[in-house]
Amino acid sequence: MYRTHTCGELRIANINTNVTLAGWVQRIRDFGGMSFIDLRDRYGITQLVIDENTNQPVVAQIGQLGREYVIQVKGMVRERSSKNMNIPTGEIEIALTEILILNPSLVPPFTIQDDTDGGDELRMKYRYLDLRRNAVKQNIELRHKMAQETRRYFDDQGFLEIETPVLMKSTPEGARDFVVPSRTNPGMFYALPQSPQTFKQILMVAGYDRYFQIVKCFRDEDLRADRQPEFTQIDCEMSFVEQEDILNTFEGMLRHLFKKIKGIGFDQPFLRMSFEDAMNNYGNDKPDLRFDMKIHELTGKLQGKGFGVFDQSPYIGGICATGAANYSRKQIDELTEWVKRPQIGAKGLIYIRFGNDGVKSSIDKFFNAEELAEIGNLFGAKTGDMIFVLSGEKKKTLGQLSELRLETGNRLGLRDKNRFVPLWVVDFPLFEWDEGTQRFYAMHHPFTSPKPEDMEFFESDPGRVRANAYDCVVNGVELGGGSIRIHDQKLQQKMFKVLGFTKEQAEYQFGFIMNAFTYGAPPHGGIAFGFDRLVSMFSGLDSIRDVIAFPKNNSGRDVMIDSPSTISKEQLEELQISLDLKDNK
Amino acid sequence: MYRTHTCGELRIANINTNVTLAGWVQRIRDFGGMSFIDLRDRYGITQLVIDENTNQPVVAQIGQLGREYVIQVKGMVRERSSKNMNIPTGEIEIALTEILILNPSLVPPFTIQDDTDGGDELRMKYRYLDLRRNAVKQNIELRHKMAQETRRYFDDQGFLEIETPVLMKSTPEGARDFVVPSRTNPGMFYALPQSPQTFKQILMVAGYDRYFQIVKCFRDEDLRADRQPEFTQIDCEMSFVEQEDILNTFEGMLRHLFKKIKGIGFDQPFLRMSFEDAMNNYGNDKPDLRFDMKIHELTGKLQGKGFGVFDQSPYIGGICATGAANYSRKQIDELTEWVKRPQIGAKGLIYIRFGNDGVKSSIDKFFNAEELAEIGNLFGAKTGDMIFVLSGEKKKTLGQLSELRLETGNRLGLRDKNRFVPLWVVDFPLFEWDEGTQRFYAMHHPFTSPKPEDMEFFESDPGRVRANAYDCVVNGVELGGGSIRIHDQKLQQKMFKVLGFTKEQAEYQFGFIMNAFTYGAPPHGGIAFGFDRLVSMFSGLDSIRDVIAFPKNNSGRDVMIDSPSTISKEQLEELQISLDLKDNK
Repeated sequence: MYRTHTCGELRIANINTNVTLAGWVQRIRDFGGMSFIDLRDRYGITQLVIDENTNQPVVAQIGQLGREYVIQVKGMVRERSSKNMNIPTGEIEIALTEILILNPSLVPPFTIQDDTDGGDELRMKYRYLDLRRNAVKQNIELRHKMAQETRRYFDDQGFLEIETPVLMKSTPEGARDFVVPSRTNPGMFYALPQSPQTFKQILMVAGYDRYFQIVKCFRDEDLRADRQPEFTQIDCEMSFVEQEDILNTFEGMLRHLFKKIKGIGFDQPFLRMSFEDAMNNYGNDKPDLRFDMKIHELTGKLQGKGFGVFDQSPYIGGICATGAANYSRKQIDELTEWVKRPQIGAKGLIYIRFGNDGVKSSIDKFFNAEELAEIGNLFGAKTGDMIFVLSGEKKKTLGQLSELRLETGNRLGLRDKNRFVPLWVVDFPLFEWDEGTQRFYAMHHPFTSPKPEDMEFFESDPGRVRANAYDCVVNGVELGGGSIRIHDQKLQQKMFKVLGFTKEQAEYQFGFIMNAFTYGAPPHGGIAFGFDRLVSMFSGLDSIRDVIAFPKNNSGRDVMIDSPSTISKEQLEELQISLDLKDNK
Repeated sequence: MYRTHTCGELRIANINTNVTLAGWVQRIRDFGGMSFIDLRDRYGITQLVIDENTNQPVVAQIGQLGREYVIQVKGMVRERSSKNMNIPTGEIEIALTEILILNPSLVPPFTIQDDTDGGDELRMKYRYLDLRRNAVKQNIELRHKMAQETRRYFDDQGFLEIETPVLMKSTPEGARDFVVPSRTNPGMFYALPQSPQTFKQILMVAGYDRYFQIVKCFRDEDLRADRQPEFTQIDCEMSFVEQEDILNTFEGMLRHLFKKIKGIGFDQPFLRMSFEDAMNNYGNDKPDLRFDMKIHELTGKLQGKGFGVFDQSPYIGGICATGAANYSRKQIDELTEWVKRPQIGAKGLIYIRFGNDGVKSSIDKFFNAEELAEIGNLFGAKTGDMIFVLSGEKKKTLGQLSELRLETGNRLGLRDKNRFVPLWVVDFPLFEWDEGTQRFYAMHHPFTSPKPEDMEFFESDPGRVRANAYDCVVNGVELGGGSIRIHDQKLQQKMFKVLGFTKEQAEYQFGFIMNAFTYGAPPHGGIAFGFDRLVSMFSGLDSIRDVIAFPKNNSGRDVMIDSPSTISKEQLEELQISLDLKDNK
């Protein structure tokens, strides 16, 4: 062992102990007669001190050291004269008697500090240096802790962690698969799992009634910001349960994590909200409930008063921003430009201000004070508040109102990263109609079960059928989702029919799992949580990238190892494939 | 919830409780006035009883049931009149009042029992039924427990579990990679990791001084028996440590697992043996030390006495099989045939029998009693023992003696599956000479460090240099191996030179990690354990297949989901690759 203690360990109680430490040189300060080195390792920073009068050979070595050199040092712990109470080792320092350079370092291309001067691209290229920064290290440690606590919870609840294959089979439904050519089966391919969905349902058929896995999944998508081609899920499935059992079990998991990791408890059961209420009241199936600011429909109230924009809109809705009446003309203009950006796409923004000097609005021409007051009552608006109104096609406008609500929440400081409001969104529609292909798609997946009470519409009005499907949402972020599956074959066949599959197509795509289901499939259901997302929420980050040790960039490249890369002619020949590059680059 | 209790839970204390159970019909027995159903779930089997006099509607349902039907039942717990003390629920039964068929089942193609009538191929095709068998289920549960305990140990020791990428980069050295074409980077490929070796060393450079991961690895090899294209490793790396620290830490891991899982403790430190001793004394770098039966070299003693076979052999060696003197002529012939099989490849087998009637051998013609007795003394042979002798080229003969030793151990019942003898094999050679390519290869990998005391031979006689490399061997099975890595760049360059790399080749293949090492790489080393192998050893199995939920067969196929499979023309086009099948099938 190269050390007796770590750099985060020594305290006032260790004074007069001879110690050996090893780590990286964070900083060297030379004060004439006295030099100081901050020595860093995973556990902290310890101050080393070299007195020029007493340590001649050691003093000579200091000149050779540079930032990020790896050194081993020996010395005695002593009390600092000027203490630093901001760090745990701040009351002591080591009076050095020996320095051994274990490895030199080139000058790193950016500073190893919380506020580094390295840009994103540089940090990713030198990720091994970036990972030394405390800000990144904390996330990696948090991720470890959360993974262990997740497993502990499930283990205590009688779940078994079972590894499912990574070399799987390509399925045409769903997102694009990554595929792996098989050398021993020429012309054939494995696929990497988008999720272990099939295998976890198979495990239920196999009788493993409580399964979980923290597992890598893969999706060959065009990468948007904050998507990764490989990501990690907490994947779970249970048998002999109903929706309520699932919600309780996984509410338990989140409570366990919040308690163990963040010391946060929730007095009340998690809120429940139907998909329909979420859409109507928040314009969004993953509402951020850290603040209220519900959307109210105003179509009936605001039409027929001669304001053309409203009269031509199938839907009018608004939100009431508490305490925003003092917004200046400039702020309102800014917000108007904000909603008009192509990403939001609103035509304009109407406001009704409830100021000290009475109610004023941008549509005063069409509405009298009484009518505006009535609108205010609908929202419970008080003096000091401001109502914002958007109009247009219903679904679109609700979406815009949702964005406006979140942005207003941001501007009013209502979205505190240290407050967490968890929510179950339930009663999702079973089907989604796609205009392009003129067919229904399964909103969750084709094995999701319908609500029995909606079965009367199953064939006559599929769009009206709700599913036993649920999402777990915290602070407006969807952390996980799942459903109770269909275990009855007749119902499954009906489902395929509505989805427009012929019997042959259904057989081709899902024959294997349907076959497994003929051998005694129990009632079952499950859920999957995005683990990267969960960790990033706990660490207060907006992006998942910094909770992943080695993330890929937006082109799916690992710029540190320079991957993907070309492979040799011999490799291609062995796999019996050839490149067929188009001139589209 | 479909049940109040599981099928493994009810005891005499639950008598007179009304319960609801759910599970699979294991067996139905009709005794005229009385019917019995064995209901099975993951937790056990509970006996259900239906009395024809009292439960008319329920009686009628029994006729509809078949093996593996999924049912929910209600009834009252009562004491059995005829108890079955072999199962935990054997003192009670449930007097049924209700049966609900949750799902019917086709007749399974084999019996769901420990001794199933299903062959290997059938079991793999219907793996979901096979997994219902207690014999398989126990392995899956054991695997879960071992994974949790492994993590617990490392977590307690301050290790961080850090996920490394699955979409990596192909490296030409080592075994064959599985590759993944990148759609967004046409003509380029990711590779699946054969191990996270590069990334774990990068993590050491990044300062994460105790890393572990239970991780899937991939190797596109021609599958021998008991190899899987995807397998699971316990992968570990530590910084600021020497070999001794690593051995102690991972000996600790094994002790923890043996204690927690099997209740077995080891009084003594694990044995240590040099590679050289292992090869000379056991003919094998992973000796099974459950029994002694050391190999002794007899070249000097047995040559020059006129026995041509010996006189022409560069090496003669033997083992002493304690208590084997009573082997019959037939048994010796059988063993002779066994060593002559092509897999072993010996020319013949010489024996020296130490019977009650004196010493007899198959080479009596050439050696007198005194000479044979002297050989006996060398082995410490006693009356009742038998010495077997093989001769030929040294390395080959030692290998044959090793096989013979193991086989003899088997036949003498010396290899008890419930006894475990762990061993560290150390001081492996750094290089292996390859006759075919006339160059040295790194025996472990090119980052393995040499023993400082052997550095004098590094350039003059590389074959003589020993490495800081170690294997963990239990009962003749290599469970894991690792090394202290090179962290000094000058030494690393010397290493590449001996391995025959030009500077450019080294740069091309290892430039990225070499570059990382210029920014302050700490002294470090690590180890990886084969998790599948470890679990199969703990479960007393010879094969790793039954400790994997969904294994692939010897052609790398998953016969359950029928994978790998063809993919669509559109998929190939998007990936800009085409098939280039040879007519070699």
